[in-house]
Amino acid sequence: MTDTKFRPDWTETAPPAGTYRSIFKYGNPNHFKHPSDAWYEMIKRDFHLRDEDFVTRSAEGLKRVALNRPSSLKPNQIEALRSIVGAENVSCDDYSRLKFASGKTTEEMMELREGIVREVADVVVHPRDKHDVRQIVEYCDRELIPVTVFSGGSSVNFGCRPSRGGVALAVSTHMNKLLEINEQNQTARVQPGMFGPAYEDALHRAPQLWQTKHRYTCGHFPQSFEYSTVGGWVVTLGSGQASTYYGDACDIVFSQEYVTPAGAFKTLDYPATATGPKVNDIMKGAEGAFGILVEVTMKIFRYMPENRKYFSFMYPSWEAAVAASREIMQAEFGRPAVFRISDPEETDRGLKLYGIPDLADKYLTLRGFQPLSRCLCLGSAEGDKDYTRLVAKKIKAVAQHHGAISLSGYAARKWERSRYTEPYMREDLGDYGIVIDTLEAAVTWDNLHRLHEGVRAYIKSRPDTMCMTHASHFYPQGANLYFIFIARMNNPEEFQKFQRGIIDSIARHGGSLSHHHGVGRMIAPWMEGHLGKEQMAVLRALKNHFDPHNIMNPGGLLELKQ
Amino acid sequence: MTDTKFRPDWTETAPPAGTYRSIFKYGNPNHFKHPSDAWYEMIKRDFHLRDEDFVTRSAEGLKRVALNRPSSLKPNQIEALRSIVGAENVSCDDYSRLKFASGKTTEEMMELREGIVREVADVVVHPRDKHDVRQIVEYCDRELIPVTVFSGGSSVNFGCRPSRGGVALAVSTHMNKLLEINEQNQTARVQPGMFGPAYEDALHRAPQLWQTKHRYTCGHFPQSFEYSTVGGWVVTLGSGQASTYYGDACDIVFSQEYVTPAGAFKTLDYPATATGPKVNDIMKGAEGAFGILVEVTMKIFRYMPENRKYFSFMYPSWEAAVAASREIMQAEFGRPAVFRISDPEETDRGLKLYGIPDLADKYLTLRGFQPLSRCLCLGSAEGDKDYTRLVAKKIKAVAQHHGAISLSGYAARKWERSRYTEPYMREDLGDYGIVIDTLEAAVTWDNLHRLHEGVRAYIKSRPDTMCMTHASHFYPQGANLYFIFIARMNNPEEFQKFQRGIIDSIARHGGSLSHHHGVGRMIAPWMEGHLGKEQMAVLRALKNHFDPHNIMNPGGLLELKQ
Repeated sequence: MTDTKFRPDWTETAPPAGTYRSIFKYGNPNHFKHPSDAWYEMIKRDFHLRDEDFVTRSAEGLKRVALNRPSSLKPNQIEALRSIVGAENVSCDDYSRLKFASGKTTEEMMELREGIVREVADVVVHPRDKHDVRQIVEYCDRELIPVTVFSGGSSVNFGCRPSRGGVALAVSTHMNKLLEINEQNQTARVQPGMFGPAYEDALHRAPQLWQTKHRYTCGHFPQSFEYSTVGGWVVTLGSGQASTYYGDACDIVFSQEYVTPAGAFKTLDYPATATGPKVNDIMKGAEGAFGILVEVTMKIFRYMPENRKYFSFMYPSWEAAVAASREIMQAEFGRPAVFRISDPEETDRGLKLYGIPDLADKYLTLRGFQPLSRCLCLGSAEGDKDYTRLVAKKIKAVAQHHGAISLSGYAARKWERSRYTEPYMREDLGDYGIVIDTLEAAVTWDNLHRLHEGVRAYIKSRPDTMCMTHASHFYPQGANLYFIFIARMNNPEEFQKFQRGIIDSIARHGGSLSHHHGVGRMIAPWMEGHLGKEQMAVLRALKNHFDPHNIMNPGGLLELKQ
Repeated sequence: MTDTKFRPDWTETAPPAGTYRSIFKYGNPNHFKHPSDAWYEMIKRDFHLRDEDFVTRSAEGLKRVALNRPSSLKPNQIEALRSIVGAENVSCDDYSRLKFASGKTTEEMMELREGIVREVADVVVHPRDKHDVRQIVEYCDRELIPVTVFSGGSSVNFGCRPSRGGVALAVSTHMNKLLEINEQNQTARVQPGMFGPAYEDALHRAPQLWQTKHRYTCGHFPQSFEYSTVGGWVVTLGSGQASTYYGDACDIVFSQEYVTPAGAFKTLDYPATATGPKVNDIMKGAEGAFGILVEVTMKIFRYMPENRKYFSFMYPSWEAAVAASREIMQAEFGRPAVFRISDPEETDRGLKLYGIPDLADKYLTLRGFQPLSRCLCLGSAEGDKDYTRLVAKKIKAVAQHHGAISLSGYAARKWERSRYTEPYMREDLGDYGIVIDTLEAAVTWDNLHRLHEGVRAYIKSRPDTMCMTHASHFYPQGANLYFIFIARMNNPEEFQKFQRGIIDSIARHGGSLSHHHGVGRMIAPWMEGHLGKEQMAVLRALKNHFDPHNIMNPGGLLELKQ
C-alpha cells in the first residue's frame, strides 16, 4: 500500500480569468472534486499507469483566449443591437465571443485545452427582457443574422455553438427571475435564464417571498442542476433525477411564451385541452431552432423533505434489479422519486468510489452477492408522509422478492449529498489525459438487456476502457440507460470516432438517440435514420414555418437546415 | 300524487331499419333509458308542461332515408376504390352515405327527425387494413377526393361530417382488432376502429387470449365508451371518467402509425425521448385533418377491480367541494381514478334522478346540507390494494376537513352502474320537444368559479332552462367543467343560437374551448380567437405539410382550410 502515499497534484485553484480553462471548467471556479484514493488506484491499475504518469499536468488550457478573428457583423449592425439592449449589454471581446459559444462536450474541452477554437459568436447580446428579445429577433431576421441562445451553457451536444456566427443571445444574464407563483394553480412563471438553485430556493422560500401558504419544489434535478436553467430544461427535453415521480421536464411545463421570426405567442394556461394538436407540446424540444423561449410557466409541487424516505438495496444480479424495477413501475402503488439501479461494473466501481468497508464487502459476498454480479439500487420516495411510507414499504417487498438485501437509506443519502459533483472530476482526469464522458438512451423493457449488452460490448471492445451503466429514469413502459465511459485518450479525433461508434451502437441496438441530453449538433447526423424521413419532414416543415430565413440556432441542429 | 299515474309512452322499440331514427338513435337499437317518474315530474314542473304535452311524440324520424342526391364521384373513381378494397367494401346507397356521415350532435338529431339532410358522403369505403388505407389515401390525393374518417360515430361537433362529400372511410368495420399485447412493456397495439368494450374485454381476458401473467385495463372510460373507438379517443384528445388517475387519452398513447398524403410513418416506441419535438404528440388531436391513424400502441394497466374503493360525500357548498378537490389533487398522496363533484343544481336534480329517500333528505337538511347549496362528490380509487386504501382514507380526511359528510360508496357504485346510459334519454326527451345537450371546458383552479358562474348565468338567463354542472377530470392545476343544459326547444336555429351563446360565454370567461369533446366543425369558428393567429398558423403549417391538397377531413375542421 505504499502507492497510496502518492497523490497527484490535482488542481486546487480557480482558473485564471480570461483563460481557456476558465471556459471549459465545470461549475463553480473554486469548487473541485478529486478522484478518491481508491479511484486513483483503480485508474492506475486499469489503465496500466504509474504514479509517474500523474506528475505533470498536460494541456491545461491556461493561456488567455485570443481569437484573431474579426466579427463578421458590420459596425452598423452592432450599433443597431446596442440601440436595442444598451451598449453595456453587447460584448464583442474575444473572451465573450468564445465563452458564450461554448458548451461542455468532451471535444470542446479537449480542444480548448490546446487553445483550438471552432465556431464563435460574432457578438454576444444580453437581453434585459422579452421585449428586447422580440426586437433582436425581428432585427436579425431582417438582416439575416443567426441567433443562438446561450443559457446555462451545460450543453453536451454543441447545442449552444453558433455554427454560423452571428449573435449569441445570453438569456441567463438578466432574464433569470421568478416572476410569479400562483399558489391556487400550483404554477410558477419563470424567465428562461433562471438557474436551478435560485429557482428551487425561491420556491422553498415562497411563504416569505410570495406569501404562499406552503413551500414548493420544482421537482426537476438534473445532474447539471446547479449550472443549467429552467429554459434549458424545457427546450432540450431534460430529465431530473427525481423524474420517476415528478415527470420529465416536458411533463412539468404548464405553458410557454415564445418569440419566433413568425411571431410571438404564449400557449394557453389549461390543465388539459382538446382543441387540436397542442402548440405547447410542439415547441418542447426545439432546442432554439424554432424560436426563443422567453417565459415559461412550470408546475410546482409541495416541498415536504420531512416526509422523504430513502432506500438502498443490493440485488444479486442485473437481471434481478431490472425485473424488480419493472415490477415496481407497473404495480400501481405510486412511484419513487429518485430511483437508480447500477449495473455490475458501476456497482463495483461505485462501491470503491464511495468506499465500502471491507467487512461489508465480505458480508455481501458471503451472502451470495458476488462482485461483478451484484447490483446496487438506491432511491427515495417523496410526497405525503403516509404515501412515502407506503411506496418505500412496497419497494422493499418487491426488492426482497427478487432476492435483494436492504442496505438501509445510507447509500441513497450519501449519493444525494454528492449528486451534482461528479462532473467536477472531468478536469482532474483530463489533466492527465483521461476522458470521462457519457451517452444515454431510452428503451422499452423488452429491449433493455439487448441495448445494455450491445452498447457495453462495443465500449468494452476498446482495450482498457471502463463502462459503467445505470438506469435512473423509470416508466411503466421502460427506462433510460446511462453509459459512462472512462478511457485514456487525449486525441479529439480518436475520441470522436469512439463516441460515434457508441452512438451507432445505441441506434443499432434499438435505443433512442437520447433520453434527456438532447440532440444539438452532435447527435443530429443520426436523426433522419432514427426518426425516418417522414417524421424528419415534419420537423423541417415546422422549422420552415417558424424560421423561414433560418436564423434561429442554424447550422444543422436537430438535423434541420445548415 | 295522481299525476304520477300517467307515464309518457316512451319509445320501447328499435327504430325500423333504413330510417333516419335508426341513424340518430344513440347506442344499442334495443336499449332505452327513460326518465324516471321523479324526473318526469320535475320536467313538467320546470317547463310548465302537463301530461297532455306528453301524449303525442313528434318528428320521430321514422321515414326511410332517401337522398335524391347523386354521388359526385365518377364511375371510374368508384371502380378504382372497389378495386382497392373489394366491391363488397364500397357502399353507394343513400342510407350508408348518410349513416357514415352523421355524428351525434343535437342539430343533426333535430334535423334528421325532420328528414333534413346536410352533407353526405359520395361513397362509403370500408378498408380491410392499413395497406388498403394507404392505397385509398394515395388514390384520393391524386384524384383530389376528400376523405373523412368515420369510426365510432359518436362525435358531438360534426367531426365526421364529410363537408365536401367524397369518401367516408369507415375504419370500425374491419380495422377493429387488438393486434398484440406486450406484457413486458405493458402496451397494446390496436387498430383504430376497435370499440371500447371489445378492447377492454380483450384486456381483461389477456391471460386466456394472450397468455399474459396479469389481467389488464385500458384505463379510458368516456361516457361514450360503448360506442366510441380507440382511434377516436386518440385523434380527438378524449378523456375517460377515470382520467384523474390514468390520464387523458393523450397520456395513454405510447406510439402511433399514420397514413397521410405526405407519407406513412410510425412514431417511435420509447417511454421518453429528447430527440426534438415529438411527432407522437404533434399528431394527437388532429381529428383526421393531417392523416389517418391506422394503428396505435396504448399503455395498459393492471386490472385489479378487487382493490377498487368507492366513496361519496356531501359537501355543504360548491366552494367547499372545489376547495377540497384542489387540496386532494395537490396533496401528493396519489390520485383517485373516478372523481366527480356536482354543483348545487346538479346535486339537487341528481338526488331526484337517483331517488334519494325522503328520510335521508331530511337528515341531510337537518345537518346543514341545504338543498341548492349542498354538493355531491363521488368517485373511486384504483390500483394496488394498500394504495387504494390510502387514497380513499386521505380523501375522506380532506373532505371531512372541508365540512363534508361521508355517504359511503353507495352513490358512487350506483353512478357507476349507469355511467354509460345517460345519452339514451336524449331520444325520449326529444320525442316531446325537449333538448338535453352538453358543453364543456377545462379551467385552472383560480378561474373555476368565474367560469362556472359566468356560463351558468348565461344558460340560466334563458327562461325555464336547467343547467347542471359537474367537474369530472381533475389535475393539480385545475379541472374541467361540464355543463348539461335541458330546455324545451325544437327549432334547430334557436338551439344553435343558444349553443353559440354558451360557447361565447365559455370563451369570455376563460375556459378552454374544449376539455375532451374536441373541436370538429362546431367549435372551429372560435379557434383563432382562442389560440391566437400565431398558434393557428402553426396548425395550418402542419396541415399544409401533411395534406397539401386538402383532402383529409376538409371543410374547416379545427378552423383549418375549407
